[in-house]
Amino acid sequence: MSDKNKLLLLFDRPLETVIVPRGPDQEAFDVPVDLLSDRYKAIGVQVSNRFGEETKSKIPVKKISPPPLGEILDLPRQANFSLFIPKHRKIAGRLINIFLGMKDTDDLQSMAIFARERVNPYLFNYCFSVAILHRPDTQDLDIPSFIQTFPDKYLDSQVFSRAREEATLVPEGQRVPIEIPRDYTASDLEVEHRVAYFREDLGINLHHWHWHLVYPFEGAEQVVRKDRRGELFYYMHQQVIARYNLERFCNALKRVTRFTEWKDPIPEAYFPKLDSLVASRAWPARVTDQKLSNLRRDQDQITQDVDDLYRWRDRIYEAIHSGFVQTDGGGRQELTEFGGIDILGNIVESSNLSVNRTLYGDLHNMGHVFISYIHDPDHRHLETFGVMGDSATAMRDPVFYRWHAYIDDLFQQFKGSLPRYTEEQLNYPGITVTGVSVQSQGGAANTLNTFWQQSDVDMSRGMDFQPRGSVFARFTHLNHQPFAYNITVNNASGGNKRGTCRIFLGPKTDERRTAWLFKDQRLLFIELDRFVVNLRQGENTITRNSTESSVTIPFERTFRNLDLSRPVGGEALAQFNFCGCGWPQHMLIPKGTPEGYDCQLFVMISNFDDDQVVQSTEGICNDAMSYCGIKDRLYPDKRSMGYPFDRLPRNNVNTLQEFLTPNMRVQDCVIKFTDRVVVPRPRN
Amino acid sequence: MSDKNKLLLLFDRPLETVIVPRGPDQEAFDVPVDLLSDRYKAIGVQVSNRFGEETKSKIPVKKISPPPLGEILDLPRQANFSLFIPKHRKIAGRLINIFLGMKDTDDLQSMAIFARERVNPYLFNYCFSVAILHRPDTQDLDIPSFIQTFPDKYLDSQVFSRAREEATLVPEGQRVPIEIPRDYTASDLEVEHRVAYFREDLGINLHHWHWHLVYPFEGAEQVVRKDRRGELFYYMHQQVIARYNLERFCNALKRVTRFTEWKDPIPEAYFPKLDSLVASRAWPARVTDQKLSNLRRDQDQITQDVDDLYRWRDRIYEAIHSGFVQTDGGGRQELTEFGGIDILGNIVESSNLSVNRTLYGDLHNMGHVFISYIHDPDHRHLETFGVMGDSATAMRDPVFYRWHAYIDDLFQQFKGSLPRYTEEQLNYPGITVTGVSVQSQGGAANTLNTFWQQSDVDMSRGMDFQPRGSVFARFTHLNHQPFAYNITVNNASGGNKRGTCRIFLGPKTDERRTAWLFKDQRLLFIELDRFVVNLRQGENTITRNSTESSVTIPFERTFRNLDLSRPVGGEALAQFNFCGCGWPQHMLIPKGTPEGYDCQLFVMISNFDDDQVVQSTEGICNDAMSYCGIKDRLYPDKRSMGYPFDRLPRNNVNTLQEFLTPNMRVQDCVIKFTDRVVVPRPRN
Repeated sequence: MSDKNKLLLLFDRPLETVIVPRGPDQEAFDVPVDLLSDRYKAIGVQVSNRFGEETKSKIPVKKISPPPLGEILDLPRQANFSLFIPKHRKIAGRLINIFLGMKDTDDLQSMAIFARERVNPYLFNYCFSVAILHRPDTQDLDIPSFIQTFPDKYLDSQVFSRAREEATLVPEGQRVPIEIPRDYTASDLEVEHRVAYFREDLGINLHHWHWHLVYPFEGAEQVVRKDRRGELFYYMHQQVIARYNLERFCNALKRVTRFTEWKDPIPEAYFPKLDSLVASRAWPARVTDQKLSNLRRDQDQITQDVDDLYRWRDRIYEAIHSGFVQTDGGGRQELTEFGGIDILGNIVESSNLSVNRTLYGDLHNMGHVFISYIHDPDHRHLETFGVMGDSATAMRDPVFYRWHAYIDDLFQQFKGSLPRYTEEQLNYPGITVTGVSVQSQGGAANTLNTFWQQSDVDMSRGMDFQPRGSVFARFTHLNHQPFAYNITVNNASGGNKRGTCRIFLGPKTDERRTAWLFKDQRLLFIELDRFVVNLRQGENTITRNSTESSVTIPFERTFRNLDLSRPVGGEALAQFNFCGCGWPQHMLIPKGTPEGYDCQLFVMISNFDDDQVVQSTEGICNDAMSYCGIKDRLYPDKRSMGYPFDRLPRNNVNTLQEFLTPNMRVQDCVIKFTDRVVVPRPRN
Repeated sequence: MSDKNKLLLLFDRPLETVIVPRGPDQEAFDVPVDLLSDRYKAIGVQVSNRFGEETKSKIPVKKISPPPLGEILDLPRQANFSLFIPKHRKIAGRLINIFLGMKDTDDLQSMAIFARERVNPYLFNYCFSVAILHRPDTQDLDIPSFIQTFPDKYLDSQVFSRAREEATLVPEGQRVPIEIPRDYTASDLEVEHRVAYFREDLGINLHHWHWHLVYPFEGAEQVVRKDRRGELFYYMHQQVIARYNLERFCNALKRVTRFTEWKDPIPEAYFPKLDSLVASRAWPARVTDQKLSNLRRDQDQITQDVDDLYRWRDRIYEAIHSGFVQTDGGGRQELTEFGGIDILGNIVESSNLSVNRTLYGDLHNMGHVFISYIHDPDHRHLETFGVMGDSATAMRDPVFYRWHAYIDDLFQQFKGSLPRYTEEQLNYPGITVTGVSVQSQGGAANTLNTFWQQSDVDMSRGMDFQPRGSVFARFTHLNHQPFAYNITVNNASGGNKRGTCRIFLGPKTDERRTAWLFKDQRLLFIELDRFVVNLRQGENTITRNSTESSVTIPFERTFRNLDLSRPVGGEALAQFNFCGCGWPQHMLIPKGTPEGYDCQLFVMISNFDDDQVVQSTEGICNDAMSYCGIKDRLYPDKRSMGYPFDRLPRNNVNTLQEFLTPNMRVQDCVIKFTDRVVVPRPRN
């Protein structure tokens, strides 16, 4: 058996034939002529000869008789690929099955090369990634970050011609990172641009792409049916909206307006200024005041009326207000207090697990599709979809949040119908949180400090047809000083206890600077951390670093460089791919304001008896379990996601203060933003 | 003095520093370090070393102390450049003056390199071209075709990544042309797409770019003040509209609708699918039903209200209907029968020669600007202009024709106010055209044959940062069988005579297939040829080939390859640049229809005494004099441009037949289109 690590070289330089040397060791695949594309069958020898000197070694490739690719080839090489498009999903499913069916990694390598030389590069990347994630014999392979393979989905298109200049003309030691301006998609004349640093953040967009990669809404049962996936769809996106709104408050913007009138013009424009390197086409813009139209895109097998959205919406509301859904077979399934949200999540998204797609349709997904085709609903202009059509790019667009604010409100309608948490469901008898503070490195107590940071990402693996060697893009993103929570807890229960410490951050006032009603404020609390604590009798002091957060993954993982930060050990590697999912650590804290933005830090220790999920092992890679779960495990917290803020408060609770039971505590704090740019340390 | 031909190497690979070898002989400029950009000052030696082996020879560059570039650097390297933008015009003027002021070609070479390493590449190309066209010591230099330097303004963006693949991977002898699909900007669902082959034709767009290069509307007096330039602006664009309408008739479309309601939505969308290689940005699209907005683009120094257009329009109409214009000084200038159209052309366009820009404004130019900024009128989205903002790309867009149909109608309002031609002004006593026919090569009499043709254009000179050697794009365009006119003329005047033979083609019926009134039909006659004939007494037979047309330039010139088709001799070369202007021969004849489109061929022999322009020499390069004039000469036909169709007919003339005097004749003919594609002969 040959070295299966070589499979990873197939991710690099997505358009280049693999007979050309690739990777740091300049290895070329020694491809049997039958596996080459027709173009390179004819000239493969000449091409290999041209690169003979550069090629340091040859990787053997086994001869196989590959199955016919059939309709997989219907998607042209230079097209764009989206899982929202039924036809694309279908052919992706076929290709995944072919890869999964290969009997060993040698055959897989040959088959992958055969496909790679022919099929659309985005399609290949997706199917090959899924196969590697799910084949037992490739669990120890570490798929490169999507941003390295397809940097064009994340970076200002202008960097690429400058990157070509660096790579082609400048010797490797002399190259300088190519700086992306902080404001390149719009100016401050556009008020929505104030939160562009959030929408266009690389880490946030990578998180969203990873989330939908590990929680696909369609595919084989074993891929889709994950524990509480419908509920997590609701919760992760609810948190995105809460975080976005908090960010808006910090920028003197009001909460995002739900997109409810689907036949009205959409005032928010968005010009992504991204180019697809594969398609050699720009991502289409949406100008101001465009309207959704009925879709008649035969080529994509999409025929849908805007009225369908209204019908699905009305049926979903009816289910919510009736307390049950109608199943496929005509029966009724109750939307229970704890399980109902999961059913609803799968219906609304919708996923394969929807109990009745005929009746409840495909609301959230088709919203993305309608918006992404707003400029060319009947394909007369041969245009591809806008950024809303791809989970790697959707969060860049202001309308993403308007759409998801609508979707979230649907879920809140349901949550509002549930029994309120009683004091017993909230309290932890004997446990009192007696003190909470946060301390930034070198800062004042209860002050979080934010600033701009520059970081570099290597684009060269994603850039075809240019000389070898790294080329870095330098982008500017929000960051904060690392900080620690200090929590003191009195355990008067008469014994040692375990609890789950839940930490949230919320705005102290609303956009008018008036005090909150708890029923509104609770929707703006963003989760910062969630972890298990052991409480001795008497006073306990809990110290926890911001970098340990259960919602984030470390900065290095977002932009990981395979060659530098490869984790050690087989099992760790297997998990590594899953754990690309996670909110970026550098976006844990909202931007704040120069004068200090007033927040409330909420800490709760909940009763572990009601939290605990019994499962065999804990799972190794669970850094970002709050938003992403743990791979192949149950969601590690039995409570409803969002607890204790996911329901309306009990009677007579109007304020956060009134909501508190002794095991909770609130600490005022401020987020201070300093408008300075921290530059990266020079590479050696 | 060093070889000034090396100046032409500065046009190649617009983004690449000239210390890297270029041209077929792999020559690198040996640039004094002070002239390099800061980036290459630091690493120039390393870069030169990296390309040491490839460099076949070094071109010496003189040390000079260049003047400061100042505001010329305000336009970023990666921006787009448009002469419609006042700020851009201003800095272009400064750079042109610097180039013109260099004392010899050695100094020019140094200054050009200094500028080229710093300023925007489009700006550099334009200014350097104008300087070479106007310096006495560079009259024998032959500027490369614009399509070779900036192929991205003419070709589907998708060819470029495929071109990179060919150039990088495939050895030169094995490369294949990259085929551009005939329908890539839209599909037949969009009715306007039926004439996309006309709008997107490379030759037509190159003609338009050249026309505005040789007839700029602003600049130094000696550059702008050309004989009858205002009238030629009217006539050339009138013919474009006539040709477009004829093309529309052949495709079952009605005449283009004037764009008159400037605050209403524009239903025609256009998605150019062009990428700027220099800017690494796509050309913005215009979606359906967008509306003009007041412009507030501070960066471009454009502040203009849509209402300004209405004001200018009303004043221009007032001038037309009063018969005079108000001059700058408050005086009156009459719009005379023959000179009035020239004054009006300069007012409407408007050019520097407008008699009163304060009063009559900048109607045509600002129309382009308003439309080109329709998606981002206040620059909030940091968007550049659409295709209407650049004369190299404007004719691709359906709205170009709606706008110019409006502009043309303005001129026709004026023409309608002029005295009608009398029979004396039309007739040529003693001269009778007795027979007219056309004969295609190998075809039936009076039948013109059209078909699709594929041609190749080398993109490699315009593509930076890739290995050397040609890469061809293959595109499909309309073409026709060459044909000849056979005209018999009886001269009964009693002596030898000279005449101007004027040949036009027009549709036999209107879009409803009903017979024409002459007053309408005359506006659809397209000029095919105009030439001087000597008529002996008695019968004369005139034979003239379609390739000799006075409106076209040959196919090879449109796509000329410098190294293959370089004309011989200094003076010929000087003219060559000017003569890039001209309608492409392959678009001389409209497409016709498979069943045969009914046309009328009109031939007139006018009295040379009233045509003749007395000037010292004829001018060497006058191939396309009908639409482009002759460089540095008077327009070689004293009649009003468009004669005899430019005015309303005399009383009681309702049909073309009634319009005829004995020196005119009409021949019915058909244009038959065959839907086959003729492929190019293989290159050796």
